Amino acid sequence: MIRNFEELVGVAEDKSTRKARELALNLAIEGIKAADPHVAIERHVKVVGELLVFNERYEVDLSRVNDVYVIGMGKAVGAMAESLEAMLDDKITEGIIIVPKGTANRYKLEKIRACEGGHPIPNEGSLKCAERLLSLAESAGEEDLVICLLSGGGSALASLPVDDVSLEDLMRTTELLLRSGAEIKEVNTVRKHISRIKGGWLAKAVYPARLFSLIISDVVGDDVSSIASGPTAPDKSTFKDAKQILEKYEIWHEVPSSVRRWIELGVRGDVNETPKPDDVVFEKVHNIIIASNRVSLQSMAELGRSLGLNVLILTSYLEGEAREVGKVISSILREVYEHDIPVKKPAAIIAGGETTVTVKGHGKGGRNQELALSVARMIKGLKGVALLSMGSDGLDGITDAAGAIVDGNTISEASRLGLDPERYLADNDSYTFFKKVGGSLIFTGSTGTNVNDFVVGVVLG
Amino acid sequence: MIRNFEELVGVAEDKSTRKARELALNLAIEGIKAADPHVAIERHVKVVGELLVFNERYEVDLSRVNDVYVIGMGKAVGAMAESLEAMLDDKITEGIIIVPKGTANRYKLEKIRACEGGHPIPNEGSLKCAERLLSLAESAGEEDLVICLLSGGGSALASLPVDDVSLEDLMRTTELLLRSGAEIKEVNTVRKHISRIKGGWLAKAVYPARLFSLIISDVVGDDVSSIASGPTAPDKSTFKDAKQILEKYEIWHEVPSSVRRWIELGVRGDVNETPKPDDVVFEKVHNIIIASNRVSLQSMAELGRSLGLNVLILTSYLEGEAREVGKVISSILREVYEHDIPVKKPAAIIAGGETTVTVKGHGKGGRNQELALSVARMIKGLKGVALLSMGSDGLDGITDAAGAIVDGNTISEASRLGLDPERYLADNDSYTFFKKVGGSLIFTGSTGTNVNDFVVGVVLG
Repeated sequence: MIRNFEELVGVAEDKSTRKARELALNLAIEGIKAADPHVAIERHVKVVGELLVFNERYEVDLSRVNDVYVIGMGKAVGAMAESLEAMLDDKITEGIIIVPKGTANRYKLEKIRACEGGHPIPNEGSLKCAERLLSLAESAGEEDLVICLLSGGGSALASLPVDDVSLEDLMRTTELLLRSGAEIKEVNTVRKHISRIKGGWLAKAVYPARLFSLIISDVVGDDVSSIASGPTAPDKSTFKDAKQILEKYEIWHEVPSSVRRWIELGVRGDVNETPKPDDVVFEKVHNIIIASNRVSLQSMAELGRSLGLNVLILTSYLEGEAREVGKVISSILREVYEHDIPVKKPAAIIAGGETTVTVKGHGKGGRNQELALSVARMIKGLKGVALLSMGSDGLDGITDAAGAIVDGNTISEASRLGLDPERYLADNDSYTFFKKVGGSLIFTGSTGTNVNDFVVGVVLG
Repeated sequence: MIRNFEELVGVAEDKSTRKARELALNLAIEGIKAADPHVAIERHVKVVGELLVFNERYEVDLSRVNDVYVIGMGKAVGAMAESLEAMLDDKITEGIIIVPKGTANRYKLEKIRACEGGHPIPNEGSLKCAERLLSLAESAGEEDLVICLLSGGGSALASLPVDDVSLEDLMRTTELLLRSGAEIKEVNTVRKHISRIKGGWLAKAVYPARLFSLIISDVVGDDVSSIASGPTAPDKSTFKDAKQILEKYEIWHEVPSSVRRWIELGVRGDVNETPKPDDVVFEKVHNIIIASNRVSLQSMAELGRSLGLNVLILTSYLEGEAREVGKVISSILREVYEHDIPVKKPAAIIAGGETTVTVKGHGKGGRNQELALSVARMIKGLKGVALLSMGSDGLDGITDAAGAIVDGNTISEASRLGLDPERYLADNDSYTFFKKVGGSLIFTGSTGTNVNDFVVGVVLG
C-alpha cells in the first residue's frame, strides 16, 4: 500500500530511528486500511445466520425482511458494494449505486447496478442515475430493508434538482454561492432546498422501509448531514435560511428564476420543507459511520497499543496553517522525548484532520509535506523519533506523493547535501526538498478512499 | 493576583461555562503562584533541624558546613533572597545579589546585600556588582556552602567582561550579533567567551565550595546553560565556535579589537576555555530548577486533578504563530467536548511555552490575546468550555493585560455588539476586540516572575 516502504524505513542510520519510522508507517497503513471501502464494510457489517449486524450494535433479522435493496453514491461506493454483495450474496433483491464516470466496470457486481454520474461536476448521468435510484428507493415497502452506501463525492454524483430547476440552474447557483464567498455549509443549505435527494429527501423516499446508511466520512467532524449533502440525514435548515443566504451574499436576483421561484414557494409553505429531525421517517433510519478519520485514528491507536506503544490521539479536527501546526506537534513530541509527557515513551502521538497551506512561494508541495518539513527542523538531532503526515486518499497537494516522513536526521542529511530547509519552506517547495533529501516522500497511488489526513509521531527515545 | 477575577467568572451566562472559566482562572493562578519567587523557594527549600534539603532530594548537613554564602542575579532574586533569608535566618554568613536598578530597597534583607545593575541593558552597576559578587564567590572555601539564585535578566544584571574588554565593547558585540540575525544561542556562545561570570565561570570561582544554584527558568526548555547565560552550568561551546559565529555573520572585523584579541588568545589556547561538563568543578555543583513553565504546569495539573478534572499536559515547548496554535488547541478541545479524547470530560488541557505574532495589522494586542481570539472563533456555541492564555509575568505584548479568557459565548456576544472577530484578528487588534466585548482581558499587573506563557483549556461539557 506504501510502495516505497522498505526505502522509507531503511534510510535511517540508527536502529531506534529506523524502528520509529517503521512504526509510524505501519500505523499510517493501518489508518488507510481501516478507511478502505472493502475493509470498512467487512469490519462493520456481519452476517450471523439470518442476522445482519451493523457496527456490532444494530441487528436486522433477515428472515423477517421482505426485499433487500442497496442504493448508494460516492467515489468509494463501488468497492463498498462489492464487499456487501459478497457478504449478502443472494439476499439482495436489487440495487443501484452511482459511481464516477468511467469506473462502473471496475467493480464485480451482479445484483447491484453501477450507474455513472459526474464528479466533481455533476452531469446528465448524475441526473439520470439519481432518478433511477430514487424510484428504486420509493418502491421499497414497509417490510423491506434498504442499505444505502455513502462516501465523498456523492453530492455531485447524484444530482436531482426539484421542479423545473435544471442541472444548469443548479450548477449556476452553486457557482454564484462559491464565488461570493459563501461557506460550504451555506452552499449546502441552498442546495438541499432545491434537491430531491439531498437534505434527507432520500430517506423520505425510502420510508416506510427500514434504512441503514453506511457512511465513509470525508468531512472533518463527521456531520452526517454534510457528507454527500446528507441524503439520509435530517436537515435543520429551512427555505427561509436558504433565501437569507442568497440575500446575504447579494445574489438572490442573480440565481436562476426557477431556483428563486421554488424557494419562494417553500418560504410560503406551499411546498414541503426538508425532513426535520423529529420527522417520523428517521425512526426507521440509522446513519452509521463505518469509516472516518476518527475510526482510522482509533484503529491506528489499537495497533499501536498492541505493538507496545503508549498512544495518544490528540484530535480528529486538526486544522491550521501546516507549518505552524507542525510546530505545535513538534512541541508535543519534544515534551514526550524529554519528559515522558503527555505520554510515556515508547509513544505514538496521533492526529487527524486537514491543515491548509497559504501559498506564498513558487515551489511544489502539499500540506502534509509542508507540515513534515516544519517538524523536521524542530526534531533535529533527536534519536528514535519519526513524524509522518499524509493524505489518506494518497494525494497531497499537486504532487505524486501522499505525504512525507521525517526524523531527527532529516535536516542533517539536507545540510550534508547543501540544502537549506528554510529556503524550501519559504518557497512552499517541500516536495523538491524531500525529493532531493531522499527517503522521505511517501508514495501510495490512489488509495480508493478519503478520510482526510493522518499525522503520526513516534517517540522511542 | 488576577484583579478582575469576579468579573471574568461572572460574565458567563450559563453555570457550566461559568464553572469552566473559574477553573481555568484558578489553574492559571496556581501556575503563577508556583512560579512566584517566594513560593518557589518555600516549596523547594526546606530546613529540617540541621539539614538543608533542596527539592526533597539534595541534603546538606549544615552542622558540617563552615560558612553559608548567598549570591545571585536576576529580576526575581530579590524576592527569592527574602524567603531564603527568612528560612536560613542566622545561618547565612554573608550574601550579595544583583537586582534591577531602583529595586534594591524593596526587599527586606539583612544578611544579603542587594546590589543594583542594569536591565535590559547592562550598566556600570552591572559591572561593579558582578565584581563584588565574584570576589565573594572566590572567597568561599572547601567547607563552605554557596547558594546561588538565578532568574531571567541575570545576564544583563551581572556583566563582567574579561581582560580589557569594556562594557561598551561587550554591548557593541551583542548589538552586532543581534542585528546580523544571530540566534540567541549563538549570541550567548560569544558572550560566554568574553565574560568572567557567564558560561560556568561563576561556578569555577565558587569551587572548591559546594554550590547549589536555585533557578527560576524563563527559557523554554529550561536549559541551565542558557538561563542568565549559565553562570553555574558547564558550557559546551568553545572559543573556536565563538569565532566561527562572528565570521559566519561577517562581523569578525567589526567587533571591538579587544574582543577579537581575547577570542584569538582563546583559539590559540593561551587563555582558559569555559568550564566543560567534565570539569571537576561540577562535581560540587547542583543546578536546580525551582520554578519554570513545566514546574508550573505540573502544579496546575495537580490542582486540576484535586478539583476532579482529568488533566492533560500537552507540552511546555509550545511555539508557533499564535492564531494557528489556537486552531490546534481548539481542535483538541473540540475532540474532548465531542468524544472525550484525548481525555474524558471534565477535562483540562494545559500547555506552556511562548507563541509568536507576525504583525501585519495596526491594532493593539499580544500573543496570548491573539491565541485566545483565534480559539474563541472555533469553540463558538460550545457550553461549559473555556480557554485562557496569559503571560506568567503579567505582560502580553504592548498592552496592560496579561492575556485573555474566552468561552463558547464570546463570539455571539461580539456579534451582538456588531463586532467582526475576523476583522480584529486580521488587524492584530485582539486587545481592542476584547476591550469592547468585555469580561475577557485578564489583568494582574506585574507578577514578579516569568516562566513564559500558560494556555489552559477547560472542557466540562
